[in-house]
Amino acid sequence: MKSYNIAVVGATGMVGRTMVKVLEERNFPVNNLCLFSSSKSAGTKMEFKGKTYIVEELAESSFNRNIHIALFAAGGSVSSKYVPIAVSKGIIVIDNSSTFRMNEDVPLVVPEVNEEEIFKHKGIIANPNCSTIQAVVALKPLHDKYNIKRIVYSTYQAVSGSGVKGITDLQNGLEGKPNVFYPHPIVNNCLPHIDVFADNGYTKEEMKMINETKKILNDYSIKITATTVRVPVLNCHSESVNVEFHKDFDLMELKDLLAKSPGVVLVDNPANNEYPLASLADGKDQVFVGRLRRDESVEYGINMWIVADNIRKGAATNAVQIAESLIKSL
Amino acid sequence: MKSYNIAVVGATGMVGRTMVKVLEERNFPVNNLCLFSSSKSAGTKMEFKGKTYIVEELAESSFNRNIHIALFAAGGSVSSKYVPIAVSKGIIVIDNSSTFRMNEDVPLVVPEVNEEEIFKHKGIIANPNCSTIQAVVALKPLHDKYNIKRIVYSTYQAVSGSGVKGITDLQNGLEGKPNVFYPHPIVNNCLPHIDVFADNGYTKEEMKMINETKKILNDYSIKITATTVRVPVLNCHSESVNVEFHKDFDLMELKDLLAKSPGVVLVDNPANNEYPLASLADGKDQVFVGRLRRDESVEYGINMWIVADNIRKGAATNAVQIAESLIKSL
Repeated sequence: MKSYNIAVVGATGMVGRTMVKVLEERNFPVNNLCLFSSSKSAGTKMEFKGKTYIVEELAESSFNRNIHIALFAAGGSVSSKYVPIAVSKGIIVIDNSSTFRMNEDVPLVVPEVNEEEIFKHKGIIANPNCSTIQAVVALKPLHDKYNIKRIVYSTYQAVSGSGVKGITDLQNGLEGKPNVFYPHPIVNNCLPHIDVFADNGYTKEEMKMINETKKILNDYSIKITATTVRVPVLNCHSESVNVEFHKDFDLMELKDLLAKSPGVVLVDNPANNEYPLASLADGKDQVFVGRLRRDESVEYGINMWIVADNIRKGAATNAVQIAESLIKSL
Repeated sequence: MKSYNIAVVGATGMVGRTMVKVLEERNFPVNNLCLFSSSKSAGTKMEFKGKTYIVEELAESSFNRNIHIALFAAGGSVSSKYVPIAVSKGIIVIDNSSTFRMNEDVPLVVPEVNEEEIFKHKGIIANPNCSTIQAVVALKPLHDKYNIKRIVYSTYQAVSGSGVKGITDLQNGLEGKPNVFYPHPIVNNCLPHIDVFADNGYTKEEMKMINETKKILNDYSIKITATTVRVPVLNCHSESVNVEFHKDFDLMELKDLLAKSPGVVLVDNPANNEYPLASLADGKDQVFVGRLRRDESVEYGINMWIVADNIRKGAATNAVQIAESLIKSL
């Protein structure tokens, strides 16, 4: 079996560490592994398949070696600067930041939804926003069959989505210490504020959900609105998703369709208190969907509850899945 | 000034205690105060205006005395049994349970919205569901001006809504102890499950929001759907509310309208990280509204974020406000 030289940029961050873990778990065919971080974290030791790796400081020269695929998870400013350098050296980049996601010539990919876009890349493949990834995994089979007209998203997002800083704010808050990262205490609060505010009153997180859903489903006729909220939960995003279809549906058929869709686990047995939960999705790679019920306020509508591990399926696992698809063409 | 003999049934519970506190804070004209509870809590001492009261065990004979108004906050089964007894003795009941809310001859009242209904009572006035109260305070002025076509509710509800048991589950969970009251751990989880499930897949809490909103706004043509969720927050419910209007609106005008509406505090300055929060609403009687922005996915729509203290405005304060209106007619 062919194997590949892989770089992880931002290797010591929460997503970067999970990428390394997922590469090992899924037995990705890694030949050389290069781990990069800021100067602050350089020198950190990390394990991969029983071998210890020393994290190196990221520099322009970092890409002057034989790397096939670089997974970037170091934030927008690092991606802005270093992704073009990596690409100029012939490295294929899978970028977790939002920097290139909406560029027309950059595929934005969730493998269960639009794997075929991967092969149109021109050096960069973008990993979507965490909240969007889990939503589209569930929405794609429904859109194919019933043609989505409109989506209303309300999210319940975990602090791990803000990385170590978010987790620290929650943990400190529970010990009575003040918040440092979030603008308000996250303990005992739901903050309707993720990422910065745009001029139209929406946050960037909300606009990402709106724009990325359309791009990934490759349908700009879908009407979408979103309210994204940070909740005092350690890990896994939950979502209340209201969907209106153009076509009628049978609820049992719709559930069956979801149950057999790739990447989806249907958990929908309210009589036994079974529905998707953060505690169920934590550490898993699938998207959990339940609370499916007809929305009687429109002609053809449903409400659904979607939960996934935002660090795994919402970031690291999805990036590694893209890499798995990509190497089929290499 | 005339004063009244008031009974509080369920006086030692979270809502009952707050009712007593709010009666004092708002200087309600109380002559005699009678406090009732289950046998378990009977004998508890409670303070009211500097005087100590002993809580008595509730019995059928409890209402054989000169009581003008009884505030019930002891749950559905107590209300089912004792409200009719109280009414038969000529006592006017303001009932916080859901037992009588949808009865045609029982006014369901939020004083800022439909105070006039109070005076049509036939002995019982129902206090609405906490999530519904805070929503309709904000929606009423918008419905009057722009005519609401459809509402999509997603709630973020505090554990205090389950009373002491909910708070204990959250506090115990934070200490690593198992959940007793909720079917799943509430720590680090959002539970899409409040009250029991109905046959249509909705919870009773969701159906309350749908049905009570229509009754209070006195408009059964409004289309409504809801997803209600328990979050690991001690007190105050937050709500993501998507509203579609029949008529067009100017966003600045809509905000001005809300800012001057009774019971509403507009908190909507994202540039300064100002929006409604549980930490802001806690202990207050108003409904906090913000994150107002045009929903571009429909012709005339907005998204809004509504937060209120569910024990105060969502229960105790609203009941006392009803009593305040009621005595105008006595």
